[in-house]
Amino acid sequence: MKATDLAIGIDMGGTTVKYGVVRGHEVIHECDPLRTSEFPGAKVLLAKLVEEVNVLQKRYRIRALGMGVPGFTDVRTGYVHELTNVPGWLRVKAGAVLAKGTGLPVTVENDANAMCYAEWAHGAGKGAENMIAVTLGTGVGGALVIGGQLYRGSAFGAGEIGQMTIDYAGNMGEHGNRGALEKYVGNRETRARAVALSRKAGRKVAESDCEPHLLAAAARRGDKVALAVWDEFTTQLAAGLSACVWLLNPDRIVIGGGVAKAGTVVFDPLRRKIRDQVAEPFRKGLKIVPAKFGNDAGIIGAAGVALSRIP
Amino acid sequence: MKATDLAIGIDMGGTTVKYGVVRGHEVIHECDPLRTSEFPGAKVLLAKLVEEVNVLQKRYRIRALGMGVPGFTDVRTGYVHELTNVPGWLRVKAGAVLAKGTGLPVTVENDANAMCYAEWAHGAGKGAENMIAVTLGTGVGGALVIGGQLYRGSAFGAGEIGQMTIDYAGNMGEHGNRGALEKYVGNRETRARAVALSRKAGRKVAESDCEPHLLAAAARRGDKVALAVWDEFTTQLAAGLSACVWLLNPDRIVIGGGVAKAGTVVFDPLRRKIRDQVAEPFRKGLKIVPAKFGNDAGIIGAAGVALSRIP
Repeated sequence: MKATDLAIGIDMGGTTVKYGVVRGHEVIHECDPLRTSEFPGAKVLLAKLVEEVNVLQKRYRIRALGMGVPGFTDVRTGYVHELTNVPGWLRVKAGAVLAKGTGLPVTVENDANAMCYAEWAHGAGKGAENMIAVTLGTGVGGALVIGGQLYRGSAFGAGEIGQMTIDYAGNMGEHGNRGALEKYVGNRETRARAVALSRKAGRKVAESDCEPHLLAAAARRGDKVALAVWDEFTTQLAAGLSACVWLLNPDRIVIGGGVAKAGTVVFDPLRRKIRDQVAEPFRKGLKIVPAKFGNDAGIIGAAGVALSRIP
Repeated sequence: MKATDLAIGIDMGGTTVKYGVVRGHEVIHECDPLRTSEFPGAKVLLAKLVEEVNVLQKRYRIRALGMGVPGFTDVRTGYVHELTNVPGWLRVKAGAVLAKGTGLPVTVENDANAMCYAEWAHGAGKGAENMIAVTLGTGVGGALVIGGQLYRGSAFGAGEIGQMTIDYAGNMGEHGNRGALEKYVGNRETRARAVALSRKAGRKVAESDCEPHLLAAAARRGDKVALAVWDEFTTQLAAGLSACVWLLNPDRIVIGGGVAKAGTVVFDPLRRKIRDQVAEPFRKGLKIVPAKFGNDAGIIGAAGVALSRIP
């Protein structure tokens, strides 16, 4: 694989499928996204993607095709077990269908792993040997690089940082897992906390006044309620990430998703709180940084993983 | 390295140093342990070990020398940063001293890693691709195998399961880390819990009546207080181990130390509680088993790691 090699990356989400032609860290040709609702079921959507990829192949010399999906997938075979948020995606041989239709080497990867790969190969994780990637949104996702390689675990499930407990008797997660980190620092919980603290302070607010970017701006202005929201948020996120640091002793943590854009108002206390609860050899070489890529991370990462797996 | 190759394993603890000649999973010649108090400081103890190893070398054809130590060590160089529980062990070039004195290839490894290696190569972890090893004692230690290799992290600190939080607002650990697992399931905490619950039930007990093996026997007899102790213990340990499972998606968890000998009274609820809080792909291929080796694990593992690292 060379730096000039081209690959197509497909980033499949619950509502849209984004895709484009990628060279290294750049999407050199981004196509109009598809709406999953217009292509019900895996079969029609995959047929449409084959068609679109073949159109691109007429124009570009493509070496590989990568697809990131929101769920469990067997990377060796391209078999998708289930996409909980996409109707009709249950036991789908996505890799085989795409390979047959396009003639390309295909990799089907979990979307958090694809994003992690983009950051590690081209972004905020560059040069890391052992890295934890976290995505903060409604859910909290994650992925790992171990020894300079994506680490997927024994059944392609590794990296579920949002499901790790920070309170064994606490809020219930989606899988019977009390104290699941995402039930504390997910966007919904952050908004709810902001609404509650605002009302306690005698303010009239709606949920829509409490989006993370608004709370970040308010905190930068010194607003006490917003600062209190981020104080609790960073205490809880630091607890979860510190557990990962004790277990894996990484040299990099890359944090993406909406909240990561909040800047120093989140990153300064977060870094301090993590350092205050891990021993010296764990904090010494550890960098905690915001992700470099935004919406394109999925496309770039899917393409990059696919290129890296060409024999 | 062949199955018949011999190596010397040294297992250094806070009070004694155990060592012997190892072939595979067997200690074929175990020497009388040294008492660390009789050899104050690293220099005299290492000189004594060189002498002893050279005596053994006259009798056996030794291929490698491995030493497990309770603290941070740079495996590449055999440099020991600090052993908190052993006076005089600060910045010690143990590997270089042992290699020069014995003429053998030397590996100095963290003791939890050595024990993990013994279980993975010859014991309850045999055949595992990704494995978590936990030792339950006064402290709770751990180590990891990732992709069929010991994983040490970016600064040789990985695997500190006992320091991971299970309650971000809970009991304070040794490093400013609230909710540290070992502050819940360490032997001291288990004894204290048993004493408290016994007194609440109107019984007169001393701490010495509440050693883990006595509590296990009592639980097997159906004693309600003992069962309540283990119920809370397994809830907390399951929370910590489930966090590891969500992050690493391993296929094996090996549990050693005194409590691991409690048998089904601990393992049955522990397995059930872990399975009840992780998703299907995480529990499907996961085996949770007691360690095979007892006191010899450190010697066997140190020797094994040393042999495995011969170029």
